Amino acid sequence: VKNKYLNNIQLYYSLGSNIANENAEIIGEEARHIVKVMRNKKGDEIFITNGSGSIFKTSIEKIDGDKIKLKLFQEYEYENRFKNIHFCLPKLKNPDRLEFALEKCTELGITKFLIFSSERTIKKGNKTERWEKILLSAMKQSLRSFLPDLKTTSLKEISMLEGKKILFTQESVKRFDFNLIPGNTNYYFIFGPEGDFTKEEFNLFVESELFNLGENRLRSETAIIKCASLL
Amino acid sequence: VKNKYLNNIQLYYSLGSNIANENAEIIGEEARHIVKVMRNKKGDEIFITNGSGSIFKTSIEKIDGDKIKLKLFQEYEYENRFKNIHFCLPKLKNPDRLEFALEKCTELGITKFLIFSSERTIKKGNKTERWEKILLSAMKQSLRSFLPDLKTTSLKEISMLEGKKILFTQESVKRFDFNLIPGNTNYYFIFGPEGDFTKEEFNLFVESELFNLGENRLRSETAIIKCASLL
Repeated sequence: VKNKYLNNIQLYYSLGSNIANENAEIIGEEARHIVKVMRNKKGDEIFITNGSGSIFKTSIEKIDGDKIKLKLFQEYEYENRFKNIHFCLPKLKNPDRLEFALEKCTELGITKFLIFSSERTIKKGNKTERWEKILLSAMKQSLRSFLPDLKTTSLKEISMLEGKKILFTQESVKRFDFNLIPGNTNYYFIFGPEGDFTKEEFNLFVESELFNLGENRLRSETAIIKCASLL
Repeated sequence: VKNKYLNNIQLYYSLGSNIANENAEIIGEEARHIVKVMRNKKGDEIFITNGSGSIFKTSIEKIDGDKIKLKLFQEYEYENRFKNIHFCLPKLKNPDRLEFALEKCTELGITKFLIFSSERTIKKGNKTERWEKILLSAMKQSLRSFLPDLKTTSLKEISMLEGKKILFTQESVKRFDFNLIPGNTNYYFIFGPEGDFTKEEFNLFVESELFNLGENRLRSETAIIKCASLL
């Protein structure tokens, strides 16, 4: 079944490799959550996603410690409308704000994130594991079937990627037309940190790649969420 | 000067009643912040807003304890594009999420909030003073000149207000066309709490007032911020 709209269900995640033909397995933390917190029992109907475009209607066949065996009886397939959209987010001084942006963007359908450090970012270090947990949880919460991909990189590397780069800054007065995104070109939306980019960082991009996201100054995470909403 | 776009400034707030002709006064906490944290001195140029559509370029004439006297030398006037837009937000189980929504909506230009309790809201009590602080700080942060108005009310009272009511729910499949908002009718955008409205609450509204905000389930605060972004 293609693109079926689901509502009022609880969605769980099982690695693609644990789903085969008529059966699936959920192990570890997610299995414990299903049994201990959600109190599902043998015979219960639950929905799982493989994180790569499918949701399955299943029933619990067997619970064995932190391993759950499922029988699949319906597959719903989805298309990733945002497969060519990459969100390049700066680390922010306040890590809660970046985490909030990741959660909101995932709920709104973004599936590709590049996290970079910038010269005016004070916070160093990557909390990749924590960020991935947030992405997983937001995917399930919003009943989506694409587990977002997150990589850490640098602004320089982003500037060298092939595809369209759209860097939002208050320094530009040019508006970006969200209606004009074709489905086959990679788009990299790049957002500035608090205190904006330095001159050297701006110089990694050309004038035609700079755009403005609205007439008022927005916090980094607000600009990020606004852009995801407009897409 | 009308609708001038300002950037790279620090904006402070002074009650309208403390601004008269050529002079203004800032007192209390805001004044202490300007002197002790921002370390402004006599003669410095600072920008203040009256929270009702004007930003003034001023210079500090005198600092006297927690009282600052300012000389005004330029007024910028703005129009409130959202004066007919009312955001009706439910209290949320997690108060951070409501606070985040208030902050983001203010940055995005919303100026009228109605906070209501709903049957499935666990959190009771109003944190009006805290919410107002967030609104004030977000207004200054985003260099806006309208201090949002916040009232607490009930869903029943909202349902009886005159004007267009737009209640967002996954139960509806009808999309709302954001391009069709005329400037003179009051619009009340109503968002559901976690766990959605009860049947009795839905019954306060008629079918034609129910709309859908997107194909996927969104958390309350995500729906709120998405709607503000689309406006």
